[in-house]
Amino acid sequence: MREAFDAELAVFRRQLADLAQRTRDAMTRATTAVLDVSLTGAAEVINDDAGLVEAHHRIDQQALTLLALQQPVAGDLRTIIAGLRTSADLKRMATLARHVAELVRQRHPRPVVPSAVRPTIVEMGAVAARLAAAAQEAMTTGNADAAVALEQADDEMDTLLKSLYGTLVFEHRWNVETAMDLTLLGRYYERFADHAVSVAKRVAFAVGSRG
Amino acid sequence: MREAFDAELAVFRRQLADLAQRTRDAMTRATTAVLDVSLTGAAEVINDDAGLVEAHHRIDQQALTLLALQQPVAGDLRTIIAGLRTSADLKRMATLARHVAELVRQRHPRPVVPSAVRPTIVEMGAVAARLAAAAQEAMTTGNADAAVALEQADDEMDTLLKSLYGTLVFEHRWNVETAMDLTLLGRYYERFADHAVSVAKRVAFAVGSRG
Repeated sequence: MREAFDAELAVFRRQLADLAQRTRDAMTRATTAVLDVSLTGAAEVINDDAGLVEAHHRIDQQALTLLALQQPVAGDLRTIIAGLRTSADLKRMATLARHVAELVRQRHPRPVVPSAVRPTIVEMGAVAARLAAAAQEAMTTGNADAAVALEQADDEMDTLLKSLYGTLVFEHRWNVETAMDLTLLGRYYERFADHAVSVAKRVAFAVGSRG
Repeated sequence: MREAFDAELAVFRRQLADLAQRTRDAMTRATTAVLDVSLTGAAEVINDDAGLVEAHHRIDQQALTLLALQQPVAGDLRTIIAGLRTSADLKRMATLARHVAELVRQRHPRPVVPSAVRPTIVEMGAVAARLAAAAQEAMTTGNADAAVALEQADDEMDTLLKSLYGTLVFEHRWNVETAMDLTLLGRYYERFADHAVSVAKRVAFAVGSRG
């Protein structure tokens, strides 16, 4: 009984980590699409989102089945509830990657990112990917040490967002539509980062409670 | 045993409905603050947010305790898991109300909303309040009929957002900073509406499953 449950819990964790990997890939590809003004790249991210939503629902269903059939207590219960919350974070992160791709499609062939702010968006994409990778690693290894590094990366994202918004307001170089697109684009990265930090912190908390 | 559990479940539901009421009030007050350019009103919403976060944590803790001690199955299990998700939605809705209030504070004494787009923001605030009220009613009565009306109100919000963004882009009347503020403000209302719809749909689903 216990062995079967452990095996199912291991499958659950693995599927969640796999979803984290796919979510991270989605944002990386969305960033490439927005920088390269690639309609094909954007379409791929948008089309793949349905598969991520599907995977998210499967994982949730599995968590509910584990809860209903095994009636786990203490650490196991916490693991499954944490998994449900992580699944919700990952779903939202995937949606934000899709929103980035949708901006590319809506503005095509005009680029969303003017060359002058390109370095900031490159950096935001890199920090987002780094945060998603760290969250994924925390999920896989149960290592809570990453949490501090994550907080720093999250601060970095906030600084990048402020810098982006400051450039838009004070340089007066772009029209209203470009500024609005970049306002939303920046916000998508910042929200993505916040969710990645939530995922990693939750692992740290679960590990801490177990210890 | 069953009676004690039912009593605890009733308390859980009541606290969740109370949180929904406070969240709805927060957005209503934030809307008033942004329309009246009221620093006091904004400060109240911002200060009250900590209490909402606290209430959210208490409710989550209660849900985890119910799960761990009572090991509920079937409908009861679904109710508690749905409650956890609703609590997460309400927390996010409260944060969005706080963001609206923060915009007021950041721009004061300059108003965030120019008079020409005031009717749109008034309407967005009204639709947000209507959606939050309908979600709260669905939670309290378990009545799923509201779900269709909610979808319509959610569509209305999307139309208002498109109209707001269209006005900003095509009328060229405002500077970049004003356009950026209104882009975020519009997005806060739209996200608030989405979460309210999620809450109500979840009630509809739970009622449907119960049969």
